[in-house]
Amino acid sequence: MQRYRARMATTTRSARETFRVPQGGVDLSAIDPGATPIGPQGKGKAAKAMTELGARLDARQEALYAAAVGGTSPRAVLLVLQGMDTSGKGGVISHVAGLVNPQGLHIASFKRPTPEELAHDFLWRIRKQVPHAGMIGVFDRSHYEDVLVVRVDGLVGEPEWRSRYERINAFEAEFDEQGVAIVKCMLHISPQTQAERLAARLDDPQKHWKYNPGDLDARAKWTDYQAAYADALAHCDTHAAPWYVVPSDRKWYRNWAVAALLAETLDAIDPQYPPADFDVEAEKARVRAAV
Amino acid sequence: MQRYRARMATTTRSARETFRVPQGGVDLSAIDPGATPIGPQGKGKAAKAMTELGARLDARQEALYAAAVGGTSPRAVLLVLQGMDTSGKGGVISHVAGLVNPQGLHIASFKRPTPEELAHDFLWRIRKQVPHAGMIGVFDRSHYEDVLVVRVDGLVGEPEWRSRYERINAFEAEFDEQGVAIVKCMLHISPQTQAERLAARLDDPQKHWKYNPGDLDARAKWTDYQAAYADALAHCDTHAAPWYVVPSDRKWYRNWAVAALLAETLDAIDPQYPPADFDVEAEKARVRAAV
Repeated sequence: MQRYRARMATTTRSARETFRVPQGGVDLSAIDPGATPIGPQGKGKAAKAMTELGARLDARQEALYAAAVGGTSPRAVLLVLQGMDTSGKGGVISHVAGLVNPQGLHIASFKRPTPEELAHDFLWRIRKQVPHAGMIGVFDRSHYEDVLVVRVDGLVGEPEWRSRYERINAFEAEFDEQGVAIVKCMLHISPQTQAERLAARLDDPQKHWKYNPGDLDARAKWTDYQAAYADALAHCDTHAAPWYVVPSDRKWYRNWAVAALLAETLDAIDPQYPPADFDVEAEKARVRAAV
Repeated sequence: MQRYRARMATTTRSARETFRVPQGGVDLSAIDPGATPIGPQGKGKAAKAMTELGARLDARQEALYAAAVGGTSPRAVLLVLQGMDTSGKGGVISHVAGLVNPQGLHIASFKRPTPEELAHDFLWRIRKQVPHAGMIGVFDRSHYEDVLVVRVDGLVGEPEWRSRYERINAFEAEFDEQGVAIVKCMLHISPQTQAERLAARLDDPQKHWKYNPGDLDARAKWTDYQAAYADALAHCDTHAAPWYVVPSDRKWYRNWAVAALLAETLDAIDPQYPPADFDVEAEKARVRAAV
């Protein structure tokens, strides 16, 4: 019965339907970070599913890239990754983005803004990293930090951060007009999982470089962060730029879910190889003559 | 006997020794593009070797990146890929660069220069793409085009392109001082192999986007290109920035050879994870208290 239900689940609902942020207000505490509502129900099955998703992503990405080179489509994809420390942004880049040809990837990591960046509007540094046609962009953190850490730490006043939701929506609507399909994922973990992962980092000298004592300061503001996430997700979930909440306590499920969201987004674009812009038969004759 | 010799070969000479451009003048016609002088002697063995090389590259790359984040080492690696059309520059990026975490990769593709780029010194656009500390950079074509196509097509006079060898050597010596280990690979194919690959592109509509009628014009100047390559390799093979000639008629061998060159270069750097810059035991106690 268990297996039957699991199999049914994989065939009936898409990842985009399943993980889309609930309409009309977001209560993150009601979403189980350990849930596996659709898709593979174990690590082994997830590995098998990832092999298939990898081939699908790679093929779609090549066609997307080819269409841009051929000038027949300006489409691009942007994956935005947000989440508390240890939620797995880096893991998704390695295990999901790592499935496609690196030539078609543009990865941008947004750290604490530099003085030059702070001297501009908060979207200035983001605009420069929007993926070109044919590319899959990945944002490791993003402009959402400007309504998350900035709000929690009181770096700007409330009228300013509140005004940003609308500006973000207008900015992301521009993407849509340009042909950039945006996939925003909040990697949702429990505080227990974060504690385990921070402890694991401290136990392994090869992981000390990933640990920052400041992570615990952010952890101490967990409730404030969840409230800031809930507002950002509710205000900035639009048809053009949907938000997904990805249960991320299990790494294998998190990776599968993000790969599935990306694959469904590429399926919807359905990129096509461009037709030849030369006479194929004439070129075949030229190649034969040139041997 | 065949197997014994193959096994011996893999253990006695490094890829860096084997593929290094010959000292005292380069005769490319004397290097068999179908040779497999060391390493795996078949596709199946190469696949197995690539799995091992992938794990080695990924681990080394993570330590390189960690050392840069930790501020304990400014080292980086730059892989320069040059070769005639269809020699496999894109294939190496997909199959070799694709073995490591994309977050640690910086890929730059140098196409026909823009008017802005042409208004600057030929190294101007190259400098901007030198990989940061911790990164593996990959150049798909490079500043060597400025002594290859530029020479063959007579885009500048001989005194100008001749002067560039020394300027390139001085430029690459700067890299070495900055800690960037440079690995320059000429992907060496035969004209027969190129003809087969061009014909294959024309036979497959999903590969038409990779075909450019101009490729045959470059092919018609094969001898001129080989002479230009031979001079570039002879003049710009330095201790700090060695040139390797990679037999590339067999794709599986080409990929293995470049991966092996990259792995040996990283082995020589021997990147180390940085020590913790915080009190590990005190942080463990903080994490326990924060649960």
